[in-house]
Amino acid sequence: MTETVVPGTIGELRARVEQFYAAQMRLLDSGEAEAWADTFTEDAVFSANGRSEPTRGRSAIAAAARLTSAELGAAGRIRRHWIGMSAVEPAADGTVRVGSYALIIETEVGGSPKVLMSTTCDDVLVDDGGLRVRHRVVARDDIAS
Amino acid sequence: MTETVVPGTIGELRARVEQFYAAQMRLLDSGEAEAWADTFTEDAVFSANGRSEPTRGRSAIAAAARLTSAELGAAGRIRRHWIGMSAVEPAADGTVRVGSYALIIETEVGGSPKVLMSTTCDDVLVDDGGLRVRHRVVARDDIAS
Amino acid sequence: MTETVVPGTIGELRARVEQFYAAQMRLLDSGEAEAWADTFTEDAVFSANGRSEPTRGRSAIAAAARLTSAELGAAGRIRRHWIGMSAVEPAADGTVRVGSYALIIETEVGGSPKVLMSTTCDDVLVDDGGLRVRHRVVARDDIAS
Repeated sequence: MTETVVPGTIGELRARVEQFYAAQMRLLDSGEAEAWADTFTEDAVFSANGRSEPTRGRSAIAAAARLTSAELGAAGRIRRHWIGMSAVEPAADGTVRVGSYALIIETEVGGSPKVLMSTTCDDVLVDDGGLRVRHRVVARDDIAS
Repeated sequence: MTETVVPGTIGELRARVEQFYAAQMRLLDSGEAEAWADTFTEDAVFSANGRSEPTRGRSAIAAAARLTSAELGAAGRIRRHWIGMSAVEPAADGTVRVGSYALIIETEVGGSPKVLMSTTCDDVLVDDGGLRVRHRVVARDDIAS
Repeated sequence: MTETVVPGTIGELRARVEQFYAAQMRLLDSGEAEAWADTFTEDAVFSANGRSEPTRGRSAIAAAARLTSAELGAAGRIRRHWIGMSAVEPAADGTVRVGSYALIIETEVGGSPKVLMSTTCDDVLVDDGGLRVRHRVVARDDIAS
């Protein structure tokens, strides 16, 4: 009985989500584009108000990450994606809805860190063994809604 | 027996507090002044070292939020309140004491985000069905103590 | 049975780690050098890519904190260490490995906060009644690896 009660608590669910984001963002920030893309479902949709079209599917998500990572590497820049202030809600359909804030902190070799971007990040996560993002909407604060 | 043990764990209590802050700050940052004020008790006291007098009571808290929200909207600015590094302690009187750090990140439309303010935030939370703030003390780091 | 299951969950472990960091960093940022040093084991090793040699042992860790604290006090500056995006993994040897991001936010009296530093922070924690850091590696993002 304990086994079914404990995983259902909000503490356990939040912990799983936070572990997921910690691992996911470390992969992105380390330039591990394929492993990053594998944290999305095969048919994931990644929308952003800064882009005209959503990125669709794992291989497009990997390609975008490879490109950004190469540019940052050439420029000697490191980015850190911080996800925080997450509201985690299990949905009736078995998905998990997570509404968060996100910051991108960028540091150039020999330079000072700056807050590159402040956004909201609204995810639909699915659980197929591990958590994965099926749908992500990122909205930059510097773009009028 | 499980039902009484699990909610008493620090993991569950922290999760409830974090869910509360996530929802509370999203309301403030979205300009939902009445819903924001409803996350405080009717007789809440909100002190800040940047103000000469505490704000007392839910309606004064709502009024202050409406004013700030209108000013930010007119200026095309979005603020994000990040609460973090929280130490959560249940008190003998049934309240929950939470000592946190807070950052305000402000972004102007078309501009770059800046760290507007760094503070501590010390709360007394009460639980009357949901969590609410009964007493909040915000201390800005730029004001000598 | 419940007592053995609950503390083993990832939610409970993360909560303990987060409570530990909240308390630990509040001590450092408040200039309580001895209490800060007491959050490390007697023989702790604290490495940083910004320093040529690791700091070894609790008394050296306390001395370094006292020095920094005195300098910051004289300059009228407050630092806030934010630990976040933590991936928490219990290891087979009974230790807990935690890989995090960290930010240092510095505010001068009368000034605006700035992001002084962005780093990773990789800890080995041990549990001897309370959690303590046995080994910490801090890597600044502004120093090429």
